[in-house]
Amino acid sequence: MKIIVQKYGGTSLSNEEKILNVAKKIKASLIESYKLIVVVSAMGDSTDNLVKLGSEFLDDQSNLENLRDFDQLLSTGEIVSASLMSLALRKIGVKSVSFSGSRAGINTNSLHGSARISSVNTKLIIEQFENKDVIIVAGFQGVSDSGETTTLGRGGSDTSAVALAAALNAIRCEIYTDVDGIFSADPRIVPNSKLIENISYEEMLEMASLGAKMHPRSIEIAAINEVTMTIQHSEKNTKGTILKKEGEKNMEIRNAVTGIPTSKGVSKVTLNNVKDKPGIASSIFEPLSAMGINVDVIVQTASSEGTTNLSFTLDDKDLKPCLDELIKSKVSDRKNIQTQSSLGKVSIVGTGIQNQPGYASRMFKVLANQNINIEMITTSEIRITCIIKESDLEAAAQSLHEEFID
Amino acid sequence: MKIIVQKYGGTSLSNEEKILNVAKKIKASLIESYKLIVVVSAMGDSTDNLVKLGSEFLDDQSNLENLRDFDQLLSTGEIVSASLMSLALRKIGVKSVSFSGSRAGINTNSLHGSARISSVNTKLIIEQFENKDVIIVAGFQGVSDSGETTTLGRGGSDTSAVALAAALNAIRCEIYTDVDGIFSADPRIVPNSKLIENISYEEMLEMASLGAKMHPRSIEIAAINEVTMTIQHSEKNTKGTILKKEGEKNMEIRNAVTGIPTSKGVSKVTLNNVKDKPGIASSIFEPLSAMGINVDVIVQTASSEGTTNLSFTLDDKDLKPCLDELIKSKVSDRKNIQTQSSLGKVSIVGTGIQNQPGYASRMFKVLANQNINIEMITTSEIRITCIIKESDLEAAAQSLHEEFID
Repeated sequence: MKIIVQKYGGTSLSNEEKILNVAKKIKASLIESYKLIVVVSAMGDSTDNLVKLGSEFLDDQSNLENLRDFDQLLSTGEIVSASLMSLALRKIGVKSVSFSGSRAGINTNSLHGSARISSVNTKLIIEQFENKDVIIVAGFQGVSDSGETTTLGRGGSDTSAVALAAALNAIRCEIYTDVDGIFSADPRIVPNSKLIENISYEEMLEMASLGAKMHPRSIEIAAINEVTMTIQHSEKNTKGTILKKEGEKNMEIRNAVTGIPTSKGVSKVTLNNVKDKPGIASSIFEPLSAMGINVDVIVQTASSEGTTNLSFTLDDKDLKPCLDELIKSKVSDRKNIQTQSSLGKVSIVGTGIQNQPGYASRMFKVLANQNINIEMITTSEIRITCIIKESDLEAAAQSLHEEFID
Repeated sequence: MKIIVQKYGGTSLSNEEKILNVAKKIKASLIESYKLIVVVSAMGDSTDNLVKLGSEFLDDQSNLENLRDFDQLLSTGEIVSASLMSLALRKIGVKSVSFSGSRAGINTNSLHGSARISSVNTKLIIEQFENKDVIIVAGFQGVSDSGETTTLGRGGSDTSAVALAAALNAIRCEIYTDVDGIFSADPRIVPNSKLIENISYEEMLEMASLGAKMHPRSIEIAAINEVTMTIQHSEKNTKGTILKKEGEKNMEIRNAVTGIPTSKGVSKVTLNNVKDKPGIASSIFEPLSAMGINVDVIVQTASSEGTTNLSFTLDDKDLKPCLDELIKSKVSDRKNIQTQSSLGKVSIVGTGIQNQPGYASRMFKVLANQNINIEMITTSEIRITCIIKESDLEAAAQSLHEEFID
């Protein structure tokens, strides 16, 4: 059976007219001897409304039973849009049926609020394809071993779609959204940024975690299962971005920088003269993680005389609670802590960077030419990231785009 | 295990404040060594909104797959309020958990839109009561043998509550609503109507089908399983009406007329000279039923010379389509059909009527004294109904109330 998975986001389904338009688009995309799975998000801002409603009564966010009831509450948003889409398709003559995530066989662990998909039982879907052409699945949700409704976290519908595509060995997974695809840089910062036609999973993961709007777990699942994905605009007939494994990308494109992701509102914390002993890093970062503070770049300088300097970045908004915690936990005293706010992060991402030291020095030179001071540097296999002043971000991204992409 | 079932209607749950008030009421009603099941309707007019949304895409109401998707859509309303109620209860320190109808074990046939409960699997509820004091169940819904979400029809949450009470052998089933209970007559028509303290299932069934707002099937299930029910106001501390089997009612009360239900907007159709042969009634009423026209009172007069006269009543709004169908199906020609609109129906209901011919003649005399002409008469074991002019309804109900109840 040849199956294509499509996923439509909430902005594409925000009212009755848009739902009908998507239904027509789905009908038009039906191909002889192909079956279609359509994963839908909740209509427009309905998830936000449910969160608001539930938060009125949500006392303790760490209480598992609260998270369970909350998941049951939130899951209704996608069930509504799935039911409506199936009705709309049948109205225009398409043989369709709709399922909740649970009915569709999406099994997860019991981590309510951010459950992970453990397996997909495709039995009912395959059965239903005997006399249906389209199966609508409520995204963002699944069911735990004990039969409770779970949700996969914000953006989880992407993950639902890719997991179904992987389990059903689909030809591809098409993500329809409100943007044209993945761009080489944020168009608000770099006006002549370009739509990326082809991107590898590894590059996309670096782009996703650095600002582009895709659920990182969906990319991971796509990468592991080699699911070809497309990311395109739901209301335009444009090709969008194709996401597939590195080897299938054009050789020439492979050797270039793919994108220049940026982010704003970064703070940097430096701890001086930290005792350099085993366990010191976890004693610093575990309490922050427990508080829900997301630490991003971490840099530790070489130690001397049994002490070391340690720097890390986090969101501006998390700076004060972080400092409070560091002082409370006596990891360091106030005079040994330096902080800096209103920083920005700019990276170059591309599989071409791999094992090519030339890229780093070219990047530093471009920034130096713009008289931009680099506060921190961190690299991965396919990414080089610099922390700079937020006020320098625009000039940095534009000049890097000019150097590596234009 | 001693269990009480409570059911709260949508108007009692129409916003966050009301939900919290009901939660506090539930907490206050907890009694040592008793467990509570709370069945909830959808918040306020949320079901109406879902119906409106779904109807935009509902092409063919007789298509079973449409009804199935529609049920999945509608069921979300009660799941939302159940989830919220559980969160609200936990916030004020009550050990609670919420379930969809399906999870709560409410099994139904697959008649989507008006499914009937076939059984209740109480396993999970009993398990959960080991460490929970309150279990919230989304009303109005269940699950079919094939695992599809079903709904029980408008007012179905009453039925959910009574079915759970019956299956769990509950002490009683408390229906909380936006009225004080069941009245001896419509207070808008009979100002000095009284709250009925005790009513039997049989009387309630006659009252329900004659205008009082209870789901008739919930009364039937209560009667068969001898579930004691109370119907009371959700925001007042009043006793309301107790519904139980006849034998448990006070002897004195048993011998009286319980209520004077009325309804307006009734039309009467009389077919003259209908051929009196087997199957003639079904040839008239089956097509009407298929059109969704609800025929109420049917009276057939004695036949003479192979023909008979047949009268029946229906809603004013159904008169025209009914006439069209009768003429189309050639059951009768136009000149043999008489119609009358803007009629009303008034009844006296009470187990005391049983085998007491005196009540009928007293009723007719009261109406005659008011100079009210009776168009049709029909009786059941515990009810005598007269069809009269709608303009006479008020005088009729008031004088009957004065005669039998005041």
